Amino acid sequence: MNPDLAFAVWSGERAQRVAGVLDALLPPVDLAPRALHEAMRYALLGGGKRVRALLAYAAGELVQADPADVDASAAAVECIHAYSLVHDDLPCMDDDVLRRGKPTCHVAFGEATALLAGDALQSLAFEAIAGRARGEVREQVALLAIATGSRGMAGGQAIDLAHVGATLDQAGLEHMHRLKTGALIRAAVRLGASCGRPAAADENAALDRYAAAVGLAFQVVDDVLDVEGTAQSLGKTAGKDAQQNKPTYVSLLGLADSRARIATLRAEAHAALARFGAPARRLNEIADWIALRTH
Amino acid sequence: MNPDLAFAVWSGERAQRVAGVLDALLPPVDLAPRALHEAMRYALLGGGKRVRALLAYAAGELVQADPADVDASAAAVECIHAYSLVHDDLPCMDDDVLRRGKPTCHVAFGEATALLAGDALQSLAFEAIAGRARGEVREQVALLAIATGSRGMAGGQAIDLAHVGATLDQAGLEHMHRLKTGALIRAAVRLGASCGRPAAADENAALDRYAAAVGLAFQVVDDVLDVEGTAQSLGKTAGKDAQQNKPTYVSLLGLADSRARIATLRAEAHAALARFGAPARRLNEIADWIALRTH
Repeated sequence: MNPDLAFAVWSGERAQRVAGVLDALLPPVDLAPRALHEAMRYALLGGGKRVRALLAYAAGELVQADPADVDASAAAVECIHAYSLVHDDLPCMDDDVLRRGKPTCHVAFGEATALLAGDALQSLAFEAIAGRARGEVREQVALLAIATGSRGMAGGQAIDLAHVGATLDQAGLEHMHRLKTGALIRAAVRLGASCGRPAAADENAALDRYAAAVGLAFQVVDDVLDVEGTAQSLGKTAGKDAQQNKPTYVSLLGLADSRARIATLRAEAHAALARFGAPARRLNEIADWIALRTH
Repeated sequence: MNPDLAFAVWSGERAQRVAGVLDALLPPVDLAPRALHEAMRYALLGGGKRVRALLAYAAGELVQADPADVDASAAAVECIHAYSLVHDDLPCMDDDVLRRGKPTCHVAFGEATALLAGDALQSLAFEAIAGRARGEVREQVALLAIATGSRGMAGGQAIDLAHVGATLDQAGLEHMHRLKTGALIRAAVRLGASCGRPAAADENAALDRYAAAVGLAFQVVDDVLDVEGTAQSLGKTAGKDAQQNKPTYVSLLGLADSRARIATLRAEAHAALARFGAPARRLNEIADWIALRTH
């Protein structure tokens, strides 16, 4: 099979797999309070690229973990990601009405229900980790909690909000993204890698370098697509960042240098994985997919 | 020493203890993003009765746990409680401006920062559990996550919001409170009791009966004080529930029957603890304190 096609089959299979895990993890739709449970399902099962789950499964393959052993980690990072999108879209944050081509959660269910759905999705992530069959739960919970909190994702969102309309240099922008999206991407990789044979400290350091590179690459690509894309291909409001006067890679570096930065980060991701050889295949493919994606 | 005074000394000492644990758990105030970290401190260290922490320490005494072994559990339930208050006070929820005699978090720091501070406090609760030195982390995380999520506290808040201006019978009201406040109170007791000698299943069931009784008693007292109190003695807007047309025990049962219900629940709490004898002293004292409190 052509390698691109093989990766598409693998990622499609894993995306479907984690959707099944999430469906089983979510409280049944007929359980009260129904609006809350419907909003959680809407936010969590509404598609998306499942990048974080794929990273967890791919990192699991690196340490010979069975996909079943990685399910809880993959589900947990998707719960955190979904909660962050719901809260990020709220009127007091980015005030966005469209996500993945559908009304955002608060538009569909009201602000209060969306707020609570995000809150409950965060709890569900930790429930997923606690319910999993194997691995060092204490380390996994610490990893996810720190990545999610004020020294990770929530901290990055706060820095992002504080700089709407303000200037931020490239170092400041990268610091913001390392927290806002990078921390959870690192957690996805490290959680997946904690589900198989024990990883050595220098292996974990290499995985962190990989995660930092793909996390930033993902963001630079996002900024490029925000300028080039249309609402139809993105499934969300295009040109939003520029409208909001948010600093982006494109506004700082221009389009050509942003593309060059993506190429450099892709090479860094591959270099970090070189020591692992063939078992790093899926992680390498994800780096390519992130760097080359067009939506 | 007079027993009331001895309890006041014990609870004051434990409240101070958990405040120290929370202070050490919180990121330093000079760490960026500063506004977020200040908002988290404001919400978490702004006083309050520390009922949930006291319940965790008291349940720890029941199983001969050292206070130091209970610190993480006590801190975790206070983090969850503080996050729930911050989100509950937001304009899209209860829209309250006064809490413990001070401006609510979003009034002091803005809505977006308050939202993120609440989010980050939830993460911090799980970080506290993961960082603790002993006990079954997997069980503790599951207990706290389920109590916090849509089948616990967040679910209770959703039911509460759905019934503003609507009728709710006594069974419906109790179901709502069992989720909204009862679930976290149960988690506080069970987490504390998981920090010492292993508790048998029927001991845990007795602790659940105790927690259910004090949790409801706490709420009935709240409703009575909401009618009788003033903003000054409560430190929050008095008469708020009636203004918002929320169903309360007082609106359903009247003042006299609400008081009778408090007495019954207090007796149920004591009955549930009878089997434990002297080690249940603090839990019994907390039940009395909750039933008899005037602010």
